[in-house]
Amino acid sequence: MSAPARRPVFLDCDTGIDDAVALAYLLASPSIELVGVGTVSGNIDSATAARNTLDLLALAGRTDIPVAVGAHDHLSHGYGGGATHVHGENGIGGVTLPTATRAPEDASAVDLLLELSHRHAGDLHLLTIGPVTNIALALAADPSLPERISGVTAMGGAALCAGNITPVAEANIANDPEAAATMLDAAWDITLVPLDVTMEHTLGEEDREALLASANPFTRAVGEMLDHYFDFYRPIYGERGCALHDPLAAAIAVGDGVTATRAPRVPVIVDTTSGPGRGQTIADLRGQRPRPRDHDGVRTRIVLEVDRPLGPHLVDTLTRF
Amino acid sequence: MSAPARRPVFLDCDTGIDDAVALAYLLASPSIELVGVGTVSGNIDSATAARNTLDLLALAGRTDIPVAVGAHDHLSHGYGGGATHVHGENGIGGVTLPTATRAPEDASAVDLLLELSHRHAGDLHLLTIGPVTNIALALAADPSLPERISGVTAMGGAALCAGNITPVAEANIANDPEAAATMLDAAWDITLVPLDVTMEHTLGEEDREALLASANPFTRAVGEMLDHYFDFYRPIYGERGCALHDPLAAAIAVGDGVTATRAPRVPVIVDTTSGPGRGQTIADLRGQRPRPRDHDGVRTRIVLEVDRPLGPHLVDTLTRF
Repeated sequence: MSAPARRPVFLDCDTGIDDAVALAYLLASPSIELVGVGTVSGNIDSATAARNTLDLLALAGRTDIPVAVGAHDHLSHGYGGGATHVHGENGIGGVTLPTATRAPEDASAVDLLLELSHRHAGDLHLLTIGPVTNIALALAADPSLPERISGVTAMGGAALCAGNITPVAEANIANDPEAAATMLDAAWDITLVPLDVTMEHTLGEEDREALLASANPFTRAVGEMLDHYFDFYRPIYGERGCALHDPLAAAIAVGDGVTATRAPRVPVIVDTTSGPGRGQTIADLRGQRPRPRDHDGVRTRIVLEVDRPLGPHLVDTLTRF
Repeated sequence: MSAPARRPVFLDCDTGIDDAVALAYLLASPSIELVGVGTVSGNIDSATAARNTLDLLALAGRTDIPVAVGAHDHLSHGYGGGATHVHGENGIGGVTLPTATRAPEDASAVDLLLELSHRHAGDLHLLTIGPVTNIALALAADPSLPERISGVTAMGGAALCAGNITPVAEANIANDPEAAATMLDAAWDITLVPLDVTMEHTLGEEDREALLASANPFTRAVGEMLDHYFDFYRPIYGERGCALHDPLAAAIAVGDGVTATRAPRVPVIVDTTSGPGRGQTIADLRGQRPRPRDHDGVRTRIVLEVDRPLGPHLVDTLTRF
């Protein structure tokens, strides 16, 4: 009996501490095969994000996975310098990784995504955990892309909770609202994983210690990076720990650890005005009492609740990795 | 020993079924003295709102309370026809009240508010349960108004819950976003009572029966009106019943029935763009974990939780009225 085929996943990311955690989770998953990575500016610039990704993949011995640099600037504005107060000057909490000998692909992140969408036509799942500039550019370059994508899982937005970079906007979406609007308008199934759920899933000091004690160098590196990330989150949660934004989106995309239990299909638009709501994901969550309901013909679902805490499953997966 | 002085309250409203409930509650309160009412277009046009208010006051034998007609149109646009699907063609659920012999004041709602603000300088509490067009006009006519107002309680907005007339906007604010922005900018203490709390307080069929059995004709009329209102809310709550938007704001203003237990002072701005967020109250509720915190120098608090269900206290008050 042969093992069931792993589902091919393309990751678009801005590595980033929680991107690194998500990457480790994806590599450790028995259910999916990471077939390519594109990078975008967000937590850090796209070139540094690619460097971080290559170094992390080398630590895991996965030099077979192509990494391509994507957009440095966003559709409406230039790269703004990243979130170094959250992710450190180098994007990975100041941790120095062995420099991988491998360089990024000559192809851009857009070209790599399009190429892989043909190679895995109909099967490729797209997971985005940064601003979605590359996705908008890929849709512009080839509007038939959605026909070859099995589905999209995107970390981003805030529906019924506070934003993180404005009172109502989450960073991935607000860093490129026009790109997010383009992605949400395209004809594919999208699972949006907003702050509403990601803020409810955390790691704490004990989890970090478990990661640091791992035999796997990638997992130990993740544990080291979290030191910086925990500092940022300390005033937010009132104790050292962190939210699991990107790892939760990765886990939902993989689908064998946590399951979305409340994720209605509702219209979601992005505020692309220059007003105070710029970058907000406006999800129409009216009419969800007394029970969740899907809107007819809507292909975007927004995750509001999952079945269990991600933390224990994540630590278990990374320490067995 | 003399009874403690009742605090003077000015009510600005768009009567409206839940406005009628709030009005009954205010009249029944032993703690406040309703000294004047202004009307504005919202649930119904401002002239009909004044007619409804006069008829209701006559039912209660309170022909001493002046009622003045306020703005028919809003700052940026004309009256849009009201919410007859919610409140009925006449604004009070199709219930026919005895027509009061009294006419509205010759003075406008703005002039009445300004006059009473002088008469009760420093003591007058302003309670708004409709669009706040009149308040913006009063501030324009006399920018010193806030100096004579002890505080403002306003039903309106949606912070971390769905809106009711757009995915993110509540009707009172969205009917006149510019007026709401003006009110929130003025130098007074505001308690904003948004859908986040008002949707959590309800009346049901048993409550309505208790009101219908009252000896007081105003209370019985309220019970009759609620029949229409319950129909509107049936699909929203999954059973006949209604939200207590305006009554909750009235109860918080009165302060002897329910108390706000979570109401941080945070910056609140109104989206006055023409984008999809128009009319949204953008409250900066970041940083409220692990515990609520007030922003320095901010005079607007937004109510997110109160200490007990309003329903039983409301029914008790109205049936003893």
